[in-house]
Amino acid sequence: MALGAFLYPTGHHAAAWRHPQAQADAGINFEHYVGLAQTAERAGFDLLFLADSAAARGKDWVALSRFATHYVAQFEPLTLISALAAVTRRIGLVATASTTYNDPYSLARKLASIDHISHGRVGWNLVTSGNEEEAFNFGATAYPPHAERYRRAREFAQVLKGLWDSWDDDAFPRDKASGLFLDVDKMHVLGHQGEHFSVRGPLNIPRSPQGWPVLVQAGSSEAGKELAAETAEVVFTAQRTLADAQAFYADVKGRMARYGRQPSALKIMPGIFPVVAATEAEAQAKFEALQDLIHPSVALAILEHRLGVPLAHLPQDGPLPEIAEVESTRSRRALLLEVARREGLSIRQLALRVAGARGHWQVVGSGEQVADAMQELFENGGADGFNVMSPYLPGGLDDFVEHVLPVLRERGLLRGEYQGTTLREHLGLQRPPSPHLRATAGLSSHELTA
Amino acid sequence: MALGAFLYPTGHHAAAWRHPQAQADAGINFEHYVGLAQTAERAGFDLLFLADSAAARGKDWVALSRFATHYVAQFEPLTLISALAAVTRRIGLVATASTTYNDPYSLARKLASIDHISHGRVGWNLVTSGNEEEAFNFGATAYPPHAERYRRAREFAQVLKGLWDSWDDDAFPRDKASGLFLDVDKMHVLGHQGEHFSVRGPLNIPRSPQGWPVLVQAGSSEAGKELAAETAEVVFTAQRTLADAQAFYADVKGRMARYGRQPSALKIMPGIFPVVAATEAEAQAKFEALQDLIHPSVALAILEHRLGVPLAHLPQDGPLPEIAEVESTRSRRALLLEVARREGLSIRQLALRVAGARGHWQVVGSGEQVADAMQELFENGGADGFNVMSPYLPGGLDDFVEHVLPVLRERGLLRGEYQGTTLREHLGLQRPPSPHLRATAGLSSHELTA
Repeated sequence: MALGAFLYPTGHHAAAWRHPQAQADAGINFEHYVGLAQTAERAGFDLLFLADSAAARGKDWVALSRFATHYVAQFEPLTLISALAAVTRRIGLVATASTTYNDPYSLARKLASIDHISHGRVGWNLVTSGNEEEAFNFGATAYPPHAERYRRAREFAQVLKGLWDSWDDDAFPRDKASGLFLDVDKMHVLGHQGEHFSVRGPLNIPRSPQGWPVLVQAGSSEAGKELAAETAEVVFTAQRTLADAQAFYADVKGRMARYGRQPSALKIMPGIFPVVAATEAEAQAKFEALQDLIHPSVALAILEHRLGVPLAHLPQDGPLPEIAEVESTRSRRALLLEVARREGLSIRQLALRVAGARGHWQVVGSGEQVADAMQELFENGGADGFNVMSPYLPGGLDDFVEHVLPVLRERGLLRGEYQGTTLREHLGLQRPPSPHLRATAGLSSHELTA
Repeated sequence: MALGAFLYPTGHHAAAWRHPQAQADAGINFEHYVGLAQTAERAGFDLLFLADSAAARGKDWVALSRFATHYVAQFEPLTLISALAAVTRRIGLVATASTTYNDPYSLARKLASIDHISHGRVGWNLVTSGNEEEAFNFGATAYPPHAERYRRAREFAQVLKGLWDSWDDDAFPRDKASGLFLDVDKMHVLGHQGEHFSVRGPLNIPRSPQGWPVLVQAGSSEAGKELAAETAEVVFTAQRTLADAQAFYADVKGRMARYGRQPSALKIMPGIFPVVAATEAEAQAKFEALQDLIHPSVALAILEHRLGVPLAHLPQDGPLPEIAEVESTRSRRALLLEVARREGLSIRQLALRVAGARGHWQVVGSGEQVADAMQELFENGGADGFNVMSPYLPGGLDDFVEHVLPVLRERGLLRGEYQGTTLREHLGLQRPPSPHLRATAGLSSHELTA
């Protein structure tokens, strides 16, 4: 079972920062992150995962407060994982970066650089940024439509793989005696000319320990699933029931064959929002204490943002209005609307629900109960692993490590110590061979990662 | 006297990587950099300085070998200083990033993030990239002309300062009791619309410990000096004689008044390429051993690149041909041509000279002799400090620390222990006040840094 620690500064619960034990300045408290990373590493997590937004979202305090603890007052992820690489030894480091507001050469280079610094522990979470406010910071007056963003993302990923293959693994003999530092026959100039990018290459850094940093994705739209089937090695997703998880899992893995890839070359890791304690009752009390800290305006603002419609003028104890399909955030919104219908939730109830686990799979219980829930998905074609979204930090992560991990290990579902040194090794993903070897064997890049 | 350690992976001498003690893979050897940074920090250096190029320069092995050890097979600087921030406590961390191939929002955010991670030790070396090969990696077919690059650079720096002022220092009360995480009245939305950039803001990270990371520049063209006078707080420069250094120093400082700035708000730090040993004879022998390791084709290629003209077809023991003025790298080239004229050097002699110290100020001697040379510039209006370009690493830095620093301290020219914690404090530069306070006092941003 693959295991990730998805770190929001103060935790994933909307009111986590108000928790008595919370480090309220967590987003810019480097020592806080060092503590979290080292806890996760001691516990044997395969990776830690950082989300991103290239904008402070919202203009008034309520709107800003929706995201204040994680998208307004927070470290930039690539710089944060670089720094964490220096104070950890084994755990994988996955940072989110947008294909819409980055440049492929710069991003390829930074990721390869951190892969060297960390000795092969980097993953890149490819996102396309479905958020107007980011566009305003990058010279655009509107964000590009969904299909256009995914076309760009696909080309972006191709360019990155090509740049990461600029040099064979043995392109730098560095022979002091002869004076031969590099072997130019082992250089591969990309010369990419595409719809969105023109990038000559080569990348000005040797091929990194993992060949290519691990490619992570989180889209659940049609275009997102298709791109994942073609290029992703890890998929992070929000699935709230066994049936939904199974359907998503079968769907994405089923698409891989057309790209010549084996299902095992992609690990599907749904998010889990676990509230854990020694007993179910204690866990329930923990959760309710957190829910009580949610400012009602913040909960409503989060829901409005998720659904993309105003709700403040409606009776808060009544049902959701009919909501027409729009383009921007459709897949995650559909999940929410379905939950509300299925459970007959009022606006207020749905708002609190969303503010709590943010639409992710919430499990409140003892270590045994949380392990049971994870085992069920894992053993029934719903997940290859999980991205653990602790409700508050560091306490929620400590609880998970203390109560859940020993049970998973006792049941033989989770390895103990790290067996390898790179993130690819932790996840059982093949390292893409040196481009020269690949050409000799007549392999395409798809066959490679199959 | 301000002191920087300008780190090239294996050292600044073109053949440094062939030195018997060199770490030939230094460019991607993180532990090597940790050792250098910690040595420089123990020795009390104000900062370490990293150059950059967003391309592997050259296509054949000779051309690539010119830069192979530093611009082909090397960490990306922002990721490297992030990682070094985690394993150092006091030393300033200055990274180069181009205004031509970066985006202001992303760069502002990364620099602020590293300033938080490092608790206020970041500097940004603004360059405009006078190199065609970088353009090819960023969708361009030619690099923009000099004047255009500088116009963009000026606007870029303005946008960064504006974004760094997005939030007052006290904009995040994070009051758990009331639920007030941020104070929206202390948010300042930039709303920049300029010739090159349209950036709304605010930056999605709180104001950093230094307010603004320290602004460093290295241009010596007219436009470069003018921009430095307007915005820079540190200027790194190549000056090879007292007279040249004095002229440059007076020129740049003399331009500051028109921007309402005091001369002390900008520190001029010429590069010094010191070859140091216990005695002058030993130092000379060290230098000659390094010169003997230079591959003649590499030396010639470096000179051809510097001058922008082919020279291989000419008698190598004859003089340089007449060379017409071209636009790309004119100021550094003019310095070289003057040296060749003044000293009557042949092509071969100039090539070896350039490959050695790369056009910088080379001083070969005992600790006393190197300290004498530095003192002369420092006390006669030629320098506020120096950027030390060790010929090979780590040995060359160790030599400088062992032989030169004790002499400078004995003479009272250099402080001992760090007195402050931020790079601004090390250099005696004012921290730009919170934007709200500034507005109240009716100060412009120029008056601020004056």
